[in-house]
Amino acid sequence: MSASVRSQPCAGALGAFRVIELGMYGSAPICSMLLADFGADVIKVEPPEGDFYRQLPPFERGESHYFMSVNRNKRSVVLDLKTDFGREALGTLIATADVLVENFRPGVLTRLGFSYEQCAKINPGLVYCSISGFGQTGPQREEPGLDLIVQGYAGMMLSSGEENQAPFKIAPAVPDVMGGQSAAYAILAALLARERSGLGQFVDISLLDTSIFSMQLVYLAQWLGSGESPARNGSGHPSMVPMQSFRAGDGRWFNLVGNTDRMWSDACKAMGCEDLSVDPRFATNAGRTANRQQLLDILEPLFATRPAQDWIELFKGAGIPCGPVNDLAQAMASPQLKARQMLVDMPHPRLGHVKTIGIAPKLTATPGTLRRPAPGLGEHTEEVLREVSRGD
Amino acid sequence: MSASVRSQPCAGALGAFRVIELGMYGSAPICSMLLADFGADVIKVEPPEGDFYRQLPPFERGESHYFMSVNRNKRSVVLDLKTDFGREALGTLIATADVLVENFRPGVLTRLGFSYEQCAKINPGLVYCSISGFGQTGPQREEPGLDLIVQGYAGMMLSSGEENQAPFKIAPAVPDVMGGQSAAYAILAALLARERSGLGQFVDISLLDTSIFSMQLVYLAQWLGSGESPARNGSGHPSMVPMQSFRAGDGRWFNLVGNTDRMWSDACKAMGCEDLSVDPRFATNAGRTANRQQLLDILEPLFATRPAQDWIELFKGAGIPCGPVNDLAQAMASPQLKARQMLVDMPHPRLGHVKTIGIAPKLTATPGTLRRPAPGLGEHTEEVLREVSRGD
Repeated sequence: MSASVRSQPCAGALGAFRVIELGMYGSAPICSMLLADFGADVIKVEPPEGDFYRQLPPFERGESHYFMSVNRNKRSVVLDLKTDFGREALGTLIATADVLVENFRPGVLTRLGFSYEQCAKINPGLVYCSISGFGQTGPQREEPGLDLIVQGYAGMMLSSGEENQAPFKIAPAVPDVMGGQSAAYAILAALLARERSGLGQFVDISLLDTSIFSMQLVYLAQWLGSGESPARNGSGHPSMVPMQSFRAGDGRWFNLVGNTDRMWSDACKAMGCEDLSVDPRFATNAGRTANRQQLLDILEPLFATRPAQDWIELFKGAGIPCGPVNDLAQAMASPQLKARQMLVDMPHPRLGHVKTIGIAPKLTATPGTLRRPAPGLGEHTEEVLREVSRGD
Repeated sequence: MSASVRSQPCAGALGAFRVIELGMYGSAPICSMLLADFGADVIKVEPPEGDFYRQLPPFERGESHYFMSVNRNKRSVVLDLKTDFGREALGTLIATADVLVENFRPGVLTRLGFSYEQCAKINPGLVYCSISGFGQTGPQREEPGLDLIVQGYAGMMLSSGEENQAPFKIAPAVPDVMGGQSAAYAILAALLARERSGLGQFVDISLLDTSIFSMQLVYLAQWLGSGESPARNGSGHPSMVPMQSFRAGDGRWFNLVGNTDRMWSDACKAMGCEDLSVDPRFATNAGRTANRQQLLDILEPLFATRPAQDWIELFKGAGIPCGPVNDLAQAMASPQLKARQMLVDMPHPRLGHVKTIGIAPKLTATPGTLRRPAPGLGEHTEEVLREVSRGD
């Protein structure tokens, strides 16, 4: 068991707050898990059939890795919101909560009697956050916002890769993960506002809005500058050279950044090619950008003469930004991620133990904690309903 | 001028807080801009030569779009930290601040006399957030964490695209943007902890840690399930079919998700191919996954018979998740993003006006505001130093 796994609950930075999650799939569960990791008491309210992710392979003895990856540190309560009992119990839970986060389609919770306005009557301090594919307003508000669909709308698929290549999904689930993160900081900002006003508020998160924000650097700046969609550049940069991946002699790829003239000069020295750094075609970044293909025609055969690790050590030794192009297994084996406890073994009642991603932001006085694995469906229904009936 | 641009400062959710940013490039400036958008008084402390992004094209009459995209709503103060005057002025600023966010290489601020411990002596309530490529601990702590380098380490380049394809950079700057977002929610959690304890703390953000977290859904779950790096699947999904991009008759691509048997059956009806939904090879998702290529051999020629917009309308009309694969210009022209005010014109003293990305999280009671464009270098040095000398 890792040092950061504690068997007892710990207050943490958000230990004073209770969060009701009415979430499925990725975005709302990620948001509430980020709050749970910092100590919030997150109660995940599921329908009798459970969060859809519970059914999604790969499984480990019946437990979905998808579900486990975004639901640790929570308690699960099953409520059937089609029944009077279920709706009454949810109302009681909401009365005790600081935050509600949900990702139903817009309008669904209103029809069930749990719109923001209805909840604020029960609990005026409630911060109520709705996450949806396109937001609660606008012509597309009713449309489902799956990760692939939002990636397509946001322009990120056709901005990555090579010109004329078929589009592909980018590996990080930017809509869901960034949407969940944005909801988390918006909720915390609303809680800080409540410290002064005493009042909660409604927070409206759109996966498309937050995804477009992720295009801020590089692509949106280029589009604002030129009015045209930036070209797809593979691993390269339109105006900084070299800043890209190269294939080494062992078939592995590595990234090299030598875009400032000082870095380029140091890189040339490390490679034993001082002539390149004084060559008028390549001495400046402007020259290297203008003569990119000529430079690649020199560098590519050179890099093919030695394995990637040699080049990485050579350039790192010279202070040049450089690193491997890892696959996921290589990434997770990195000594740096181990030192940062970014993959943690936690005890699990049915599996013995389970691996879970570590807590990325390291708070030092009130560190995040891994207190419990993802819950079984309805595992805490009785416990939680007893607590709220006692007025805890 | 958009309705959401106000000429007068507005308190906002974070109007009670002052943030000192000692930032350059992407991550720390993004973090402090997210806080500024919600009303925090962000003071960007720059060296006499300015944030490196000020030099990065594309420019609009001398103003860098890179710089403007992540520095609005801030004031700029130039301090030369190599001089006694500069260091004293920074100490005075820190004494008045709630938050300090910085992305120097680990150790640099300590050598200048502004480690967390040194700052906490001046101001025990200070939340001090350091953002670096690899974190403040671990064997790689000293290494520079540029976006491309971190993408390579985090496994996201070799998880996107097609098998055997050369790696490429994914378009969203996930390390910088997600790092900045993670820092923002970690800082707000620390401020909420301070509401109870009165004490600040040190927060350590690593772009590699936060990037690995972005691989949570899909890829990390698959790796945890199988122990192997997931295959590169283009736009497709390993275990849900159809869920991918298709090329239409006009050469444009569109995304279609019909992975549940109900959605697939509805999609077949919409296409006028009811026979496909009862075909035993394709009736279930398991069958469609097993017979993926056979299904594509039927669908691809069919989709080539009509333009993308026809298919999108057809499937949307039938309630099937569907949408275009936009380039960035198409994305930014979307009526939904207009309705959500995700591209806003703001007044600019030197350019007349400038376009800036909207505020993604919509808080309703204390909405974010666009109060001032990215500052000129040192534009507010006198104003801010006068304020703090008066004890504001």
